[in-house]
Amino acid sequence: MLPNLTPDTELAERLFAELRAATGDGVGITRDAYGEGERKAHAIVRAAAEAAGLDCRADPVGNLIMTLPGTDRAAPRVLLGSHLDSVAEGGNYDGAAGVLAGLAAVAGMKRAGFRPLRDVGVVAVRAEEAGSWFPVSYPGSRAALGLLRPEELAVKRQDTGRSLADHMRKEGFDPGFVERGGRTFTPDDTAAFLELHIEQGPVLDSEGIPLGIVTGIPGSRRLRAARVLGEYNHSGATPRKYRRDAAVALAELAHRVDDAWAELEARGHVLVCTFCVLATTAEAGFTKIAGEARFQLDVRSVQPRSVDLLMEALYEAVPRIEARRGVRFELGAETGSRAAPMDPGVQAGLARAAAALGIPHRAMPSGAGHDAAAFAAAGIPAGMLFVRNQNGSHNPKEAMRMDDFAAACAVVTRWAAEAAQ
Amino acid sequence: MLPNLTPDTELAERLFAELRAATGDGVGITRDAYGEGERKAHAIVRAAAEAAGLDCRADPVGNLIMTLPGTDRAAPRVLLGSHLDSVAEGGNYDGAAGVLAGLAAVAGMKRAGFRPLRDVGVVAVRAEEAGSWFPVSYPGSRAALGLLRPEELAVKRQDTGRSLADHMRKEGFDPGFVERGGRTFTPDDTAAFLELHIEQGPVLDSEGIPLGIVTGIPGSRRLRAARVLGEYNHSGATPRKYRRDAAVALAELAHRVDDAWAELEARGHVLVCTFCVLATTAEAGFTKIAGEARFQLDVRSVQPRSVDLLMEALYEAVPRIEARRGVRFELGAETGSRAAPMDPGVQAGLARAAAALGIPHRAMPSGAGHDAAAFAAAGIPAGMLFVRNQNGSHNPKEAMRMDDFAAACAVVTRWAAEAAQ
Repeated sequence: MLPNLTPDTELAERLFAELRAATGDGVGITRDAYGEGERKAHAIVRAAAEAAGLDCRADPVGNLIMTLPGTDRAAPRVLLGSHLDSVAEGGNYDGAAGVLAGLAAVAGMKRAGFRPLRDVGVVAVRAEEAGSWFPVSYPGSRAALGLLRPEELAVKRQDTGRSLADHMRKEGFDPGFVERGGRTFTPDDTAAFLELHIEQGPVLDSEGIPLGIVTGIPGSRRLRAARVLGEYNHSGATPRKYRRDAAVALAELAHRVDDAWAELEARGHVLVCTFCVLATTAEAGFTKIAGEARFQLDVRSVQPRSVDLLMEALYEAVPRIEARRGVRFELGAETGSRAAPMDPGVQAGLARAAAALGIPHRAMPSGAGHDAAAFAAAGIPAGMLFVRNQNGSHNPKEAMRMDDFAAACAVVTRWAAEAAQ
Repeated sequence: MLPNLTPDTELAERLFAELRAATGDGVGITRDAYGEGERKAHAIVRAAAEAAGLDCRADPVGNLIMTLPGTDRAAPRVLLGSHLDSVAEGGNYDGAAGVLAGLAAVAGMKRAGFRPLRDVGVVAVRAEEAGSWFPVSYPGSRAALGLLRPEELAVKRQDTGRSLADHMRKEGFDPGFVERGGRTFTPDDTAAFLELHIEQGPVLDSEGIPLGIVTGIPGSRRLRAARVLGEYNHSGATPRKYRRDAAVALAELAHRVDDAWAELEARGHVLVCTFCVLATTAEAGFTKIAGEARFQLDVRSVQPRSVDLLMEALYEAVPRIEARRGVRFELGAETGSRAAPMDPGVQAGLARAAAALGIPHRAMPSGAGHDAAAFAAAGIPAGMLFVRNQNGSHNPKEAMRMDDFAAACAVVTRWAAEAAQ
């Protein structure tokens, strides 16, 4: 029998308010990775964890680990957490919710006098928001897991132009840990990792369901700097057959690829496909046929086969459009990431906990990437719990209801208590 | 019997060289309307016309008229010409070719001692390049024809921010002429107007034909500031059914409208349709679904019905795309211009002259607008003769072979001599 544990959500709510006050930027929230904003957030969270009697330490690359010791300190730990950095002018919950949910869980255990068999740790990961700061996926968690390649320490923060290694050193940490192949967490010392996160999408809110149990983090295939090259010509004086119109060629490609997506979805595939940028260039203007256009494409699915089928449709359409419209596509380098399925045991444990607590939930893929993908890639059983949220994420209007968060904390607490036995 | 007249193409070639030297800008040619560049060009051309013994005067708004007097000064004149301004960093031939062809024709007549019955005038029109300078169509020729509305004198030159009236006054002219309803040319005093111009498109060059006899100047329907409004969302976390993707909505519209054009063309319609700008906005970026996109559309044909059919296809597609994709189109104000058919008598006369001289030619619509449209709108029989050119126009690479120009001058001379009898 599990004890009847309640998370310390008051602690979490107080910390949300402190974080908002300390890292507000006038528009939204900015907690820059390996910089001032993230530093402030770590200080606030660490102080609260110490006050709650947890054992706190930072690993050599700055990830903060706050531990409720178990009765068997040698048993592989149960780990909760997420990241504390945010995008520039973002919201208060993307990342922080997972750290504060972990703290609420272990603080609740501690308050109740509950002593788990295994250590229950809460990790505040560094530098997850690759889009805003360092153009590399999950450097904080990957450094902790032995997955960051030393050469990735040279990537530059997009605003400061200084390297990841420089930023680590400036914050008092040691990039040499990465060069030496150090690891903070391994499959031998960590039994499972659970990351709570706001959904960032509209599914739970639209369906009236507070929680999502994540089946996997999608893999992707991406074109970040694709171009269509045609020829600038006079829009009045150039008949159809003499045109090499980059704008309409790109429009046709996007429309055909979008149709291919709809068809795959009708056949049961679950994927997303986005022309994030689709644009004639600055040379375009009235009475000119566009000689150039550029686009960015982002295709994602938990099922690699679904992504591949869509990209096949693209690669089939390109030469046909080139031949018919006299244009040339330069698709540029394809980048991407592997899908990370979430551990079935963690998913089942979360479903049991939610059912025991009577909290509605559904299984769903993640849309975005998360630190949990790095833990899964390192061979640590990983799971994610999504909380219904409003207005997306990565923007100042990002929202989450505190009763939904409290329900999620209850599930996290129950799951962690069970997993730590 | 017509006398065997030869145009003074050496004069024209010398003037092309003088114009290039005086108005080169380091990149191309800049002859700014009612500004320094145009002023220099008018001075060069006027000096040459005076040296050739022509009767020169500027009308109150600065159009320069260079006349070979006829034996019956009261008979309606035959008028040749085009404009002397150019776009910024443009080419040497767009506009100037028509003025210098006219000069070559009348100088050739004068040299041969030919005395026409009617006056043969050459007009160097002011300010035709609306795209670069004043955002109003043909203010120079329309002012001369009584078609410029007084309120149009207030339009600002796009680089200086000063009004058309100010620019006229600064150059020593009198915008009051427009306010008083003055006219330089009327159907009573002008029997016909012929404008020679480079083609600006690839048709003649591709088909190996030196000259085109223009059937008409197209009318247009245009959207200059159209937008699609959707919603910015996370590209990974937003399933298809929750999206309001402005980029793909615009791509679908452009592809469908382009298909409608192809279909109209297959049914025999002659028109052009261009999405000059088609672009997500600056807020777009990786991992975002585009919440906004904008476009400019330019549809032209000599046949208004063809333009209308294409716009009907657009207006049918918009609500369907809105309903299916959850976006909203804001098409903004529609602008446009009426088509100006060229005079059948002038077309026939040009064809006769080219045939008599053994010069290959074809009938073709103009793609762009020209001063000849203003003359036609004023009720003066107007025609245009296109000269094969290379590399389009409105750019420094604009080219024209001098033997093609000489062939065109021969046709102009023969036509003018016949029309002036």
